[in-house]
Amino acid sequence: MKSKLKAIPGSVVAPQGFKASGVFCNIKRLGTGKGSDRGRKRDLALIVSDSPATMAGMFTTNQVCAAPVKVCAARAKKGRAQAIVVNSGNANACTGKQGLADALEMTRFTEQALNLPVGSALVGSTGRIGVMLPMDNVRAGIIEAAVMLGSTVAHSAQAAEAIMTSDTRPKESAVEFRIGGKRVRIGGMCKGAGMIQPGMSATGKRPAAAPLHATMLCFITTDAAIEAKALQEALREAVALSFNRITVDGDMSTNDTVLVLANGRAFAQKSKPPIITRKSRDFAVFRLALQHVCLELAKMIVRDGEGVSRFVTVRVNGAKSFADADAAARAVANSPLVKTSWHGGDPNWGRIIDALGYSPATIVEERVDIGYSTPGSRKILWSLKRGQPTRTKFKDLCVAVSSREFDLHIRLNIGQASALMYAADLTEEYVEFNKGDVSDPSSLGG
Amino acid sequence: MKSKLKAIPGSVVAPQGFKASGVFCNIKRLGTGKGSDRGRKRDLALIVSDSPATMAGMFTTNQVCAAPVKVCAARAKKGRAQAIVVNSGNANACTGKQGLADALEMTRFTEQALNLPVGSALVGSTGRIGVMLPMDNVRAGIIEAAVMLGSTVAHSAQAAEAIMTSDTRPKESAVEFRIGGKRVRIGGMCKGAGMIQPGMSATGKRPAAAPLHATMLCFITTDAAIEAKALQEALREAVALSFNRITVDGDMSTNDTVLVLANGRAFAQKSKPPIITRKSRDFAVFRLALQHVCLELAKMIVRDGEGVSRFVTVRVNGAKSFADADAAARAVANSPLVKTSWHGGDPNWGRIIDALGYSPATIVEERVDIGYSTPGSRKILWSLKRGQPTRTKFKDLCVAVSSREFDLHIRLNIGQASALMYAADLTEEYVEFNKGDVSDPSSLGG
Repeated sequence: MKSKLKAIPGSVVAPQGFKASGVFCNIKRLGTGKGSDRGRKRDLALIVSDSPATMAGMFTTNQVCAAPVKVCAARAKKGRAQAIVVNSGNANACTGKQGLADALEMTRFTEQALNLPVGSALVGSTGRIGVMLPMDNVRAGIIEAAVMLGSTVAHSAQAAEAIMTSDTRPKESAVEFRIGGKRVRIGGMCKGAGMIQPGMSATGKRPAAAPLHATMLCFITTDAAIEAKALQEALREAVALSFNRITVDGDMSTNDTVLVLANGRAFAQKSKPPIITRKSRDFAVFRLALQHVCLELAKMIVRDGEGVSRFVTVRVNGAKSFADADAAARAVANSPLVKTSWHGGDPNWGRIIDALGYSPATIVEERVDIGYSTPGSRKILWSLKRGQPTRTKFKDLCVAVSSREFDLHIRLNIGQASALMYAADLTEEYVEFNKGDVSDPSSLGG
Repeated sequence: MKSKLKAIPGSVVAPQGFKASGVFCNIKRLGTGKGSDRGRKRDLALIVSDSPATMAGMFTTNQVCAAPVKVCAARAKKGRAQAIVVNSGNANACTGKQGLADALEMTRFTEQALNLPVGSALVGSTGRIGVMLPMDNVRAGIIEAAVMLGSTVAHSAQAAEAIMTSDTRPKESAVEFRIGGKRVRIGGMCKGAGMIQPGMSATGKRPAAAPLHATMLCFITTDAAIEAKALQEALREAVALSFNRITVDGDMSTNDTVLVLANGRAFAQKSKPPIITRKSRDFAVFRLALQHVCLELAKMIVRDGEGVSRFVTVRVNGAKSFADADAAARAVANSPLVKTSWHGGDPNWGRIIDALGYSPATIVEERVDIGYSTPGSRKILWSLKRGQPTRTKFKDLCVAVSSREFDLHIRLNIGQASALMYAADLTEEYVEFNKGDVSDPSSLGG
């Protein structure tokens, strides 16, 4: 299936009928002292479909959730939207009634600037918590962004840049595939870096066994024609397999949001476009393509996490239940001692089995296997088998754990369930970066 | 009550009838390359009562638990013991059947060297995980330690030094108080530094709502005469209020152990000593004294945690339940973003409310108060009231958070329950220290 996916440039403007822009309106400079003097940084992005689109969204399950999240979660119920406006530099979180009014004003002003129907714009924010949005700047930014809209690779790149906070690079992905003989495209952009361990649901309500813990924002466009319910189901599944499986620091943000717009323009020539439903044969094709884009973007967030020097895929197998496998993988992926040992290139299985032991997952010390593999090699170097150190050479283990990317294999050998987490190491740079800049009172938040 | 407690020197040898020693037997040098060449470091301690004592113990609830923990948990059931032998440099964890045999051999050899009855010695280990104990060194160490036993301040100081791993200084505390006209003493020593968020229970089994997360070891002696059941209850309560309320890095160790020996020697002159039971009037006096010693020692562990530059007491009030208050306090105390902001002296309430929001505790954003106070000042500087930033000057907040020690006050204002955690910041030094020394294959473990 995946072999039929073709990577293409342009992210959110790759699908037909979408335009984007990214502009500078001085929110970042107002919001933070960090690096802001090193040049103007784009801080407002706009994504617009030429025609009304179906939409789906996934939102943070943090009980403290930002005003734009509240607005989008409410609008997601309609399943229809046409534009997304996003600012960086200010999260519009913990901003009370004024914050909610500001988020709504951002959508209203966008609709007006683009001559769209009321209620058709969505909104996202990321940056400092607890600071009011400089609305004059935001309005000026929206007008400029509306003027600058376009559908070239440069336009999507500028939009992707405008949603960055502590990211060191923009994150974009897009694929092309075929449905009913027509070329269909899905493109997305995202941002991450810190406060990253999303646990999103469609309603923002936490499901019983939800993962507990980024500001990550992700905006996806597609020219597929798909029913809102099918789009929501596909997105829920794709997020569960991608963004909800990543962690940088284990802190879940107040603003995590993934939004998708599907405008059906791939079939613009057809009088009766074949709309994908949950029962269509094409649904599987669409789901896999969406999963591919989400997973590419999710991994980019971990690789570009604050101070991150290693990308580790933690694979837990043989757990009693998925909840156990998930809990075990998260305990290891978030243990400060395990993460610092990765940073040092140290194959420290003692810290790993310690984390497994205090996780809520049931484990039996004498059954645990722990091993490593590196990209391009199918061979797993086992450091522990059935709770006992193996004869694998310590140097060989060090080589594996010193790779920029490696897989950590944990087999509990007591059940059939498995789970994985895309994780990162903990570095001096992370601490240095997050100590904060107290010379700047607005450097609050994630 | 506390005013009747008098601080005294000598820790574990302060109570009558106890001797201690701390010697070097080359376990640390064998076990790790870290700093070991900078001079011989004591690595084996012995604590002995002149006469049989009642005992109580609390042990890690980690599912992966070290051999010495298994041995002590089994012996704790008898409620009687007379000696404790402890090594540092090697945790004797994840060492299988041989490890268990080695732990038992340590007790047997100690009993023999001291001419004590079989089964009367307890054992503790701390250091690297997954490495077999160098038993020849251990045996030589036990013989030397038995020869060196004494009851001067120097003896207890050497014992306290011998149990250190990444600690920068020994940790000792002792108090004197009166029961039935007689002077009674309680003294203790402990070690900590990393892998610190104990969750201990009397059986090593995790209670339903147990805290989830040190290697910390603590050994306490008293010349009170107390029944084993009363001693266990007093210890359970004291640990719940002290060691189970601290966190350095949120990692719970495989070896956490607190042991108490009570030999009744304060009443050696009396033909019928007044033995404290759970119903005695003196039980309350004893409990408070034990709590005092445990709390003093627990705080020393946090203050001397790996890389720690600030000591923060996180106080959560107004929660729906104790479980909620506890979960909220732990989420804040273990959030990497909150901890790095403390390191920077940054009063970042955005990160605090974010952590509260993703914690399992029920919170309502609009009701949350967040404030700071510093030792010696009763005034709380509020940064957030009912979810809204206050007018407190940012500079004043910075001064509070830049103190070496401060209290963080969180009021959820939705219930009556409260909990506190003694926590620490996250520094570059912590990461640097824990990156590990991969040039040394034995640097495994916590």
